[in-house]
Formats: sequence, structure tokens, C-alpha cells
Amino acid sequence: MPSEPTAALIVIGNEILSGRTQDANIQFLATGLGKLGIPLREVRVIPDIEDEIVAAVNTLRAAHTYVFTTGGIGPTHDDITAAAVAKAFGVPLKRHQPSVDKMKKFYSARLNEARLKMADLPDGAEPIETRATSAPGIRIENVFVLAGVPSIARAMFDSVAPSLAHGPPVLSRFVEAHLGEGDIADALTTIQNEHPDVDLGSYPFFRGKRIGLSVVAKGTDEKNIDVVVEKVAAAIRSLNHEPSIDQQTDD
Amino acid sequence: MPSEPTAALIVIGNEILSGRTQDANIQFLATGLGKLGIPLREVRVIPDIEDEIVAAVNTLRAAHTYVFTTGGIGPTHDDITAAAVAKAFGVPLKRHQPSVDKMKKFYSARLNEARLKMADLPDGAEPIETRATSAPGIRIENVFVLAGVPSIARAMFDSVAPSLAHGPPVLSRFVEAHLGEGDIADALTTIQNEHPDVDLGSYPFFRGKRIGLSVVAKGTDEKNIDVVVEKVAAAIRSLNHEPSIDQQTDD
Repeated sequence: MPSEPTAALIVIGNEILSGRTQDANIQFLATGLGKLGIPLREVRVIPDIEDEIVAAVNTLRAAHTYVFTTGGIGPTHDDITAAAVAKAFGVPLKRHQPSVDKMKKFYSARLNEARLKMADLPDGAEPIETRATSAPGIRIENVFVLAGVPSIARAMFDSVAPSLAHGPPVLSRFVEAHLGEGDIADALTTIQNEHPDVDLGSYPFFRGKRIGLSVVAKGTDEKNIDVVVEKVAAAIRSLNHEPSIDQQTDD
Repeated sequence: MPSEPTAALIVIGNEILSGRTQDANIQFLATGLGKLGIPLREVRVIPDIEDEIVAAVNTLRAAHTYVFTTGGIGPTHDDITAAAVAKAFGVPLKRHQPSVDKMKKFYSARLNEARLKMADLPDGAEPIETRATSAPGIRIENVFVLAGVPSIARAMFDSVAPSLAHGPPVLSRFVEAHLGEGDIADALTTIQNEHPDVDLGSYPFFRGKRIGLSVVAKGTDEKNIDVVVEKVAAAIRSLNHEPSIDQQTDD
């Protein structure tokens, strides 16, 4: 277990793997966790096959401070996440009476056995309650089981965020220029070597017909990031280009 | 190795894990592979850390017919995919002269050592050539190393697609209705049990203020899918709702 908290995400999503749906959960979880100083270190997108969910949950919960899953907690036959997570922890599912009561109020006569399945939590788990739905998400030890629908996944994440152990927030600034990456690669290598505590990333872009690059400096020390950003800007100026700092280059 | 081809994708992307960038490669690769009858079975998003790339490549190339990677093949210090893939295969990097020649023509005096790094391929690999760039992607055995920039990744995928062993194309139809998933869950379970060769998925949606669900039937036998779609539509009608087949419900 690393000394600073880290997180992994398991997207349980046949619809993502088939290309039918564009994932909409990775980015907000990555951003939300980053703000809490809990870098997202790995994402796995896997199908709704029990053995694969069990294996991914057990691998990642041993390697990271927190594991989030999205998808597969609805009332239909393909919603098997709760059962798979229970299996990963070696515990049975147990119907959670407070969730049943909440769902009775919401669904009234429409509450049926299929919907009640959403109140079955791994034994020892806590519900993640939100105003978005009467059916809960699930927390068991360091694993958080969220819905796949992005609005509900967000509500569930917001509900658990205050309970997470934060690390130092990861700060980030960026510099853009209409240069090829190869023009500035050597300078970036030098700057990265001089500042191993800052993570310097280079990302090419194509906007309209113009190429360019974004250089992103990330770290937990604001002063060091500022120094790195200034060095990157100076390297760009030395190539007779104008750096654009922390704002997208005009096109 | 399964009898039908399968694929895995490794997205090498600190910028995806930080939330700065929304992934734009998973969906087109999932769709493109599905059309070839090569279901995408797993995606991993990992940081540009050599050991993690090596581990993911070696795990997934043993488990799937094909492995694709995106990202990390540019000229900068954080572009380490080619070196990591070489390490995964236990071979050295070797400068590929035809790629050097191509890059000389394109870059002329701007060709420098940083850019020449893009011509270093794992020994025994073949370049994936496109009109999009002079620097190649990489094929080594069943692993395809593509660029991270979506337009270039697409061009590289299109270039290799004809060489892949196709499976039977995965066909898909869907039925939508303004019903809660729980209303139709039992019927879907019955239909799924009657047609184990068709993969029946249920996905709730929220459009404006209306909830609904999409039921997706996937498989390789068109007739079976048609039968399943009709059964799902009949189940929806039995609940006094109107199914919308293969088109989005009006909102």
C-alpha cells in the first residue's frame, strides 16, 4: 500500500466494450479524486462476467487505497456487481432492511422482487445513500460500488467523498504553443530531469489545421510547478514561439 | 486462447487518469473491432510507467488474440511505449531505417534525435504505416502499438484491420421504452434464459425528465436476435407500453 492514497476504477460495462456507449464516468471520477489528492492510478473496463469482476476487485483492492466500480447494480439479470463483490470478499448477500423500507416508500405497489435485489448488499457492507435514487450504492471496506448512470454515480461519489482519506491535492498548470513536440523534446527532458518532483507531460493537439502541444506540469508543490512552467515557457520563446500559459492557444 | 478472436486495449494515458482529457479511442476501437467480429473484452487505462506497461502487455497478450495500445509513441521524454513493449517481448529497440528515410523527407532539417526516437521499433516488429504521419505505429506479434491522437490512432487501426483474423460479426438490435428496468426485469431474465446464445443487456436512461430503458440484443445469429427483439417488444406491450425498436424513443 503506498503512503499517499491512490485509487483504481473498474468500469463494468458491456455497453462500453461494444462501443455502443461512450464512457462518461472515468473523467469525473479522475477529476474528483485528483482534487482530493487521491490520484486515479488505473482503470479497467470489463464485461459483466462474475469471475472477471471478482478477479479485478481482488487484484485492485490489494493494490490501492480505494477501488470504485461503476455499473451493474440495477434490477435486471445483467446486474451482477453486488453478488460479484460479495464473492470477492467471501461473504453472502444480505437484504438491507433500511434500504427496503426506503424503496417501499418510493416504489409503493411497483416494488417487486427484481427491484428488491437492489437492497441486497454484501454482508458487512454499508449503503451509499443519495437523493438520486432509493436504491443504494455499496461500500465494503475500501471498495465503493457506484451506479453506471453518470448522474447517479456522481451523487454517490459526492456522498462518499467526505469520508475518504485525502492526500495533498495534485496541482496542475499548462503551457501551450504551436510547435511540434519534437522541436522541444530535448528541453523538456532537461527540465523533467531537473525537477523529478514535478510530473511533466507533453500532449500534441490538432485544432483545425494547426498542430501544437500542451505541456502539463503536475505536482503537489505550487512553487516548483511555477518554476517548471516558466522554464517551459522560456524554452518555447527560445524557439521564437509565443507560449500560452494556462489558457488555450488562440486558433 | 479462445476459439473466436478477442481483443484487449491498453490506454497509456496519464492525461486520462488525471481527468484532463476525455478518452476518445476506446469507443471507435470497440466499434471497429466489433464490426470485424473481434469483441473487445477488456480495456486498461494505465500511467506511463514502464513496469506497468510491461505487465499489462504481457498479461493481455497471453489472454487475447490481439492487444492494442494507444499513446506514448511521440518524441518526448514521457513517450515510453515502444521501449516498454520491447521490454515486454525481451528484445532490444532497433532503429528502423525505412522509417528514418520517410521521416527525413517529411521533417527535413527539423529531424532531430528526439524525433528519430519514433523510428526505434522493438527488434522483429513491423511498422504500421499511414498517410497521417511519417512516424509509424508498431506491430509485434499480436500487439499493435497505436498513437494516442485519435485521428492518427484511427488511421493506424484502419491500416492494420485488413490483416486481422475476423470472427463472425457481432450483430445488435435494441428496443427502448419509457419503463423502469424493474418493471420488465423478470421478463428479460426469462427471455435471456431461453436464448443463451443472445447477449441481452438492459441500460436505463434519463432523457430530460423521462426515464426509460434500452434493451440491447447482441449475437452472431440474426434470426435469433430478431426472435429475442420480438419477445422483448411483446413483454413491453404486455405492460401497456409502446416499444420503440431500433430507434431512439421520442422525448
